[in-house]
Amino acid sequence: MHVGQRVDLLSTPHPIIDESVLAANIARVQGYMDEHGIAFRPHIKTHKIPELAREQLAAGATGINCQKVSEAEVFADAGFNDILITYNILGPEKLSALKSLNDRVSLSVVADSAHTVQGLAGAMAPERPLTVLVECDTGGGRCGVQSPEAAANLAKSIAGLPSLRFGGLLTFPASNTEPTVEAYLVKAKSILSEMGIPCPALSNGGTQSLFSAHLVPSATEHRAGTYIFNDRATVRAGHCGIEQCAMHVLATVVSRPTDERAILDSGSKTLTSDLSGFEDYGHLTEYPNARITTLSEEHAVVDLTACSQKPSIGQRVRIVPNHTCVVTNLFDRLVFHKDGVVTRILPVMARGQVW
Amino acid sequence: MHVGQRVDLLSTPHPIIDESVLAANIARVQGYMDEHGIAFRPHIKTHKIPELAREQLAAGATGINCQKVSEAEVFADAGFNDILITYNILGPEKLSALKSLNDRVSLSVVADSAHTVQGLAGAMAPERPLTVLVECDTGGGRCGVQSPEAAANLAKSIAGLPSLRFGGLLTFPASNTEPTVEAYLVKAKSILSEMGIPCPALSNGGTQSLFSAHLVPSATEHRAGTYIFNDRATVRAGHCGIEQCAMHVLATVVSRPTDERAILDSGSKTLTSDLSGFEDYGHLTEYPNARITTLSEEHAVVDLTACSQKPSIGQRVRIVPNHTCVVTNLFDRLVFHKDGVVTRILPVMARGQVW
Repeated sequence: MHVGQRVDLLSTPHPIIDESVLAANIARVQGYMDEHGIAFRPHIKTHKIPELAREQLAAGATGINCQKVSEAEVFADAGFNDILITYNILGPEKLSALKSLNDRVSLSVVADSAHTVQGLAGAMAPERPLTVLVECDTGGGRCGVQSPEAAANLAKSIAGLPSLRFGGLLTFPASNTEPTVEAYLVKAKSILSEMGIPCPALSNGGTQSLFSAHLVPSATEHRAGTYIFNDRATVRAGHCGIEQCAMHVLATVVSRPTDERAILDSGSKTLTSDLSGFEDYGHLTEYPNARITTLSEEHAVVDLTACSQKPSIGQRVRIVPNHTCVVTNLFDRLVFHKDGVVTRILPVMARGQVW
Repeated sequence: MHVGQRVDLLSTPHPIIDESVLAANIARVQGYMDEHGIAFRPHIKTHKIPELAREQLAAGATGINCQKVSEAEVFADAGFNDILITYNILGPEKLSALKSLNDRVSLSVVADSAHTVQGLAGAMAPERPLTVLVECDTGGGRCGVQSPEAAANLAKSIAGLPSLRFGGLLTFPASNTEPTVEAYLVKAKSILSEMGIPCPALSNGGTQSLFSAHLVPSATEHRAGTYIFNDRATVRAGHCGIEQCAMHVLATVVSRPTDERAILDSGSKTLTSDLSGFEDYGHLTEYPNARITTLSEEHAVVDLTACSQKPSIGQRVRIVPNHTCVVTNLFDRLVFHKDGVVTRILPVMARGQVW
């Protein structure tokens, strides 16, 4: 595997990234955010590669979003300064690492409980307060305080602690087209205003509803990761066309046991079992009517019943995965190409960390 | 993270392996195989760690089973000599690596097509023939020739090639209790006998039906991987009890947004999305009535509706994953413990390889 090699000579299975599509995806989303005056903060979970985040910043992103302390450490080491970790950080080891990080970069985290806030406050120092945003559940049904009133109260407690600084409100919304998202944020900000607490930022997130970010006008920032590569799920969501998917998994047909069945070398240790709402495990570019019906760890079973043309043993295929972020996370390197020739081989630097 | 540390001080999420259960699982399965006179060949896919495979060999296993050329290379480098790769190996780069491997260890592979056989034959040399078993589809519905007659014919072509040696028949069966499995193997062996072709081995496989391996009496060898750790799926299959699961994923409750909802820090990048036929993503040891209903990459959403006692933020829980092999594959190291104290930290040496 080396730069200049033709991708059709790479051993399979392996994910490959189309440089032209990658660059267009970065430019397209930054252009939309610029047009609507929304600060954009890419989530690095999709690629975990500093070099790609640098390209996102060069296009106009204001900072990066990580999900884990270990990811933030890798990116801080790589020279990134504005890092938001959208996670409730708990436990002495992580809090100690967070303190060290906060001493050297412009760091912010989220909290959705008094427990998290107390832990953060105890670990930080008043000389270098940590910025904390309140995570709000505006319908996403994951983390987050449950009401604008609860958000304001938690913000108030953060604002009152000398080792913390209240940084704003944050949501991973159900959908930007739900009026509850905007209503929740506006209400919380209004209560904060009555309390005399400034709310520096309202951070919204997600790729699938990215191009409706302007429908939540109170938001000052948007976070998204998947858009840089795209995948079958972002196509289905109407975010992009299949030709705007930068990641393909190269696979080889290793067996044709029956006329209707092909076996690929891309199993759950390559594609993952993420169905993302689909009934099969990826889209075959060359055989769009083929269905990857089951995965074992190193085999994909493909039903060819609906295919007029069928692949033969040894033939290579490209798969658009259901979910790109989890595929990256399985590999130590990603291979990039332009017009079928390898341009770069980059280590997935922030994967495989201890926490 | 260090030896001697208490596991309840480890940062989460992380898989931990109970040394006592591990040792008992190795001994139990080897004992069964010894009792029934079946050679046992552990599949290293579950742990990918040479040190554990050495413990399996020390207990009486005759060799190891890998699924990828890269895995076999790691184990050959670690001193293992008898290696079976249960995969159709195709493509010049892998065939070249296979040739090098075959020159230094006692290697065997499988084939289920003339295409694979031709590739293997072309890459090997008559001075050091490669052993090839014919993979048979006895109902598993993955790879494998479709009939005893086809198996015998492919075996005959292998036996006729100077750079290959016919090593026997191999299956990953639907279930050992299906009479078709034994009938298929017996019939194929009988045809081979009529052809005057010796069949040195009949290799059967799988953990879920492992303790019915003796119901396929023609088989001379059994292969299995998951049994060394066990998981929720092997419990459901009746292979073991939940207390015989050596792997737990340590996780922390990071949020309690509502009375009925807890959020853990173990998402699909920790547990994987493997449902393995379950409707939720793992068994919580301390809260057996809790249900992990959805995973995002770094969050597990837990429904506590059926729980009389409920965990609080910061509390740590242990999860028996649905499928242990894919969890190992996400981590660079596994942590072992005895009575809650870390005994070893071993790198997952054969993960993340290029092919």
